[in-house]
Amino acid sequence: MTDIQDSASGDGPATQLLVCVKCRRGRDMPPDGRRPGQALYERIRALELRPGISVAPVECLQNCDHGCTVALRGGDDKWTYVFANVDEADHPQMILDGAARYHATSDGLIPWRERPEHFKRNCVARIPPMTLPEEALND
Amino acid sequence: MTDIQDSASGDGPATQLLVCVKCRRGRDMPPDGRRPGQALYERIRALELRPGISVAPVECLQNCDHGCTVALRGGDDKWTYVFANVDEADHPQMILDGAARYHATSDGLIPWRERPEHFKRNCVARIPPMTLPEEALND
Repeated sequence: MTDIQDSASGDGPATQLLVCVKCRRGRDMPPDGRRPGQALYERIRALELRPGISVAPVECLQNCDHGCTVALRGGDDKWTYVFANVDEADHPQMILDGAARYHATSDGLIPWRERPEHFKRNCVARIPPMTLPEEALND
Repeated sequence: MTDIQDSASGDGPATQLLVCVKCRRGRDMPPDGRRPGQALYERIRALELRPGISVAPVECLQNCDHGCTVALRGGDDKWTYVFANVDEADHPQMILDGAARYHATSDGLIPWRERPEHFKRNCVARIPPMTLPEEALND
């Protein structure tokens, strides 16, 4: 099983970077059949990962009109984020830098000034932590 | 704490319907200051909820350009879904019907033919289950 808690590093629950590998970025399939999402995943995997961060391919995050798409999650105490319009050539290192900043937080909220510009402009959704206090949800 | 597992009904983990109550649907604030997202939340809460389904307000799901926005989650074994373009007047019952269909699944995947039309056309993202087998993620 992929249990983020189980693979936690010493400094908190592990961060999982999910990459939609089926993404065609709204286009017809390229002649060689290699999807932009798969290329994005492979390029990210070829880079050095910080401790506590893992990368997982996912078959469709269903943000098909605005791909490529990645998501960041990190256990029950953190917001989960989904980012769109990721470019497989230009953005792999930026995504990993953002993942490292996400990993360094306790709640998933990267301080605005530290947030990659792409994250600021291309967040399509976020999901609250599982452990958000009931009072905060139902104030 | 809001732990979906803790509030599980007899037929599986509870389903949580998250409603973005801060949504202005990309418009200026209405003169009375009542946001469409807050109105959506209140109208959903006024309807009868099926057993096992709870509704929680959330301050910003960050799908601001395509609100109103709701999300469905239901424990570690289910996909989490985010749906956009929800109308506070027309859609509350449809959202609850969709939530009931989601609740009836084991993995969050509502069969396509049973899926509300709005869900088919307005899914902005989905997040895989926490317990998705590693093999499925890394095939």
